[in-house]
Amino acid sequence: MIHGGVCAAKGFKAAGIHCGIRKNKTKKDLALIVSECRASAAAVYTTNLVKGAPLTVTKQHIADGFAQAIICNSGNANTCNSDGIQVAQKMCALVEKHTGISADDVCVASTGVIGQKLDITPVEWGMDALVNALGDNSSDAANAIMTTDTVEKQLAYSFECGSAQCCIGGIAKGSGMIHPNMATLLVFITTDCAISGAMLHDALCEVTQDTFNMISIDGDTSTNDNVCILANGLAGNEPITEHNENYVLFRSALFEVMNGLSRMIAGDGEGATKLLICSVVGAKDMPNARTAAKSVICSSLFKAAMFGADANWGRVLCALGYSGADIDVSKVGVTFSSVAGIIEVCRDGSGIAFDEDEAKKILSKKEINVLVTLGDGKAEATAYGCDLTYDYVKINGDYRT
Amino acid sequence: MIHGGVCAAKGFKAAGIHCGIRKNKTKKDLALIVSECRASAAAVYTTNLVKGAPLTVTKQHIADGFAQAIICNSGNANTCNSDGIQVAQKMCALVEKHTGISADDVCVASTGVIGQKLDITPVEWGMDALVNALGDNSSDAANAIMTTDTVEKQLAYSFECGSAQCCIGGIAKGSGMIHPNMATLLVFITTDCAISGAMLHDALCEVTQDTFNMISIDGDTSTNDNVCILANGLAGNEPITEHNENYVLFRSALFEVMNGLSRMIAGDGEGATKLLICSVVGAKDMPNARTAAKSVICSSLFKAAMFGADANWGRVLCALGYSGADIDVSKVGVTFSSVAGIIEVCRDGSGIAFDEDEAKKILSKKEINVLVTLGDGKAEATAYGCDLTYDYVKINGDYRT
Repeated sequence: MIHGGVCAAKGFKAAGIHCGIRKNKTKKDLALIVSECRASAAAVYTTNLVKGAPLTVTKQHIADGFAQAIICNSGNANTCNSDGIQVAQKMCALVEKHTGISADDVCVASTGVIGQKLDITPVEWGMDALVNALGDNSSDAANAIMTTDTVEKQLAYSFECGSAQCCIGGIAKGSGMIHPNMATLLVFITTDCAISGAMLHDALCEVTQDTFNMISIDGDTSTNDNVCILANGLAGNEPITEHNENYVLFRSALFEVMNGLSRMIAGDGEGATKLLICSVVGAKDMPNARTAAKSVICSSLFKAAMFGADANWGRVLCALGYSGADIDVSKVGVTFSSVAGIIEVCRDGSGIAFDEDEAKKILSKKEINVLVTLGDGKAEATAYGCDLTYDYVKINGDYRT
Repeated sequence: MIHGGVCAAKGFKAAGIHCGIRKNKTKKDLALIVSECRASAAAVYTTNLVKGAPLTVTKQHIADGFAQAIICNSGNANTCNSDGIQVAQKMCALVEKHTGISADDVCVASTGVIGQKLDITPVEWGMDALVNALGDNSSDAANAIMTTDTVEKQLAYSFECGSAQCCIGGIAKGSGMIHPNMATLLVFITTDCAISGAMLHDALCEVTQDTFNMISIDGDTSTNDNVCILANGLAGNEPITEHNENYVLFRSALFEVMNGLSRMIAGDGEGATKLLICSVVGAKDMPNARTAAKSVICSSLFKAAMFGADANWGRVLCALGYSGADIDVSKVGVTFSSVAGIIEVCRDGSGIAFDEDEAKKILSKKEINVLVTLGDGKAEATAYGCDLTYDYVKINGDYRT
């Protein structure tokens, strides 16, 4: 694990500024990430039928497997606007005008309120400052893409690939409207590893299944979900063009980045006071394991119980029961744990006597593990989420005004 | 519409008492409904794999299409207990002992916390008082089955069937863990209409699709959902044994009862301050209409926005987009209305200018209508739900203690 976020890999610079899309001048609202050369590129997108206009433009621009820059604003999602596509294209054209990078090699993303026109003027005015600020500023970019997030989310790893030392890092935003399906939130990842666009896409899709697609904050799949990765090859490794040993090394490094960001997002869910981690073991197969784990994490009743540090394991059983996963209820076991200890609360589908005070102590910590044993096979999966709190309601009772 | 709830129909008596399952002595916790003769019986149950023990026993007892009594306790769901079936059978045996009605003709239900053993002792002690209290006491029974409900839920209608005047009425409980699928919550319906068990079952299943299966409070499908109907035939109409005109009359009356109870349940959702009604029109077919309407009603973000009287229609579009329904986003329209007025906020998938103050006024009322036009066909469906509030979190942060 290393410092530097999206600037950790060779040849990447980033910037984040306040350009005026948001009224609050202390909140950055425009981010730019550039590679010094064209990079292999891959992305996954929301499966919501209502899609942010920037996604359509990004999809076109990386259709050839290459890109060189990512521009992203917060404060407005540029979604459900009749002029959305034009505005997103204009943002790419502004990057070309100010950096010389072809607009066709620019990925664009927006996040914020849906259905209000995005005024391009502040972006135009801010481009000079944004480009001038390019440097080792991953943190500024991470801040500029935040909406209701309370902490910036970035991390980076170095790994060996063949004889070369590679770096990979990412930034993410996401706090509400988080229930990814095939893709999620906004995540931008950079690496100097040499890898083809096709292999990059395969690795991204594989890892997404076990990371971003396994988190949920509120059950609402966003219209603007987008994970985008650029690999510029400057590490000098032999390019990865097939599913070989180096591909596996790269995929592991990518998993570390995406899994780390997933946990950060879940723990910073809107209003959250706790990170909830549900691990299901002994499932028949992976789809059943994933479905069961995610159902627990998504249950409003379970989430509210965790907020209250109430060991109401019946709600875990209930969520498993309606999940759609193929499980034998009479074999289910549930154990809660945290840094304060571990406590078994259900065995063979029925409750067992446990110390309520001890359970309360365990569930009062910031990170809660729920272990569900199904006793049906060998598949396992982990899902991440957060508790449901007064502040979630407060934040979302009046988001726009 | 008439008075009397489950006692409106000829030959039905009800009672509700406090027997001691709950510690709070002012809260009734045991209900009994009896018919003076055996009645046709039908029921639908939760699809949750984790099922309350009483459901298994009820299913056995009405397998022959007949029943004569319903006993139900609140304060404990008798679910996920190793001795659950025996306790549920014991409750039926107690009804036989005290009324002479065969235990095999008794339906049993329980509602409350999951995974704590249900002590039969208070039920044994309370049976004398319960049977002595049998009379025109639908309200007592409705109160006795309540958990976090804040208002009792009962209603009744009279209707003509052939030359006979029939009555049909019901009571319901349900406030949290409400996201029915094929069956829901606890609802007990009585009628003096003469109708075969098979026709009763058909009507119940048909009407459930458009009523209880179209409400959601928190997305959590309960383990103990159960709608049970008894038809004792004392109205003297020619028995309904096929899908004829009288069947349609009966089904319409049943719809009125079940639809009315559905609205009551949605409006009394845990912590709710508002009843939300989402009507989708112009859908390709019924499944798409139902899926779209229910997705809006289930969205935590939309529910929180309604709590805040915030006309954040982007969240309606978002929920439609991830619903799985086959819709053309570019044709979608959204209109909010209440007793305070009506306001169009989205047309052809994009926002239109509207008066925010006017919208706030409309959304500040107790009953909010969201009209979604899809422009794709003629199917329509309506779903019922409630807003997401601080009190939902409060109620569920510490339900057990």
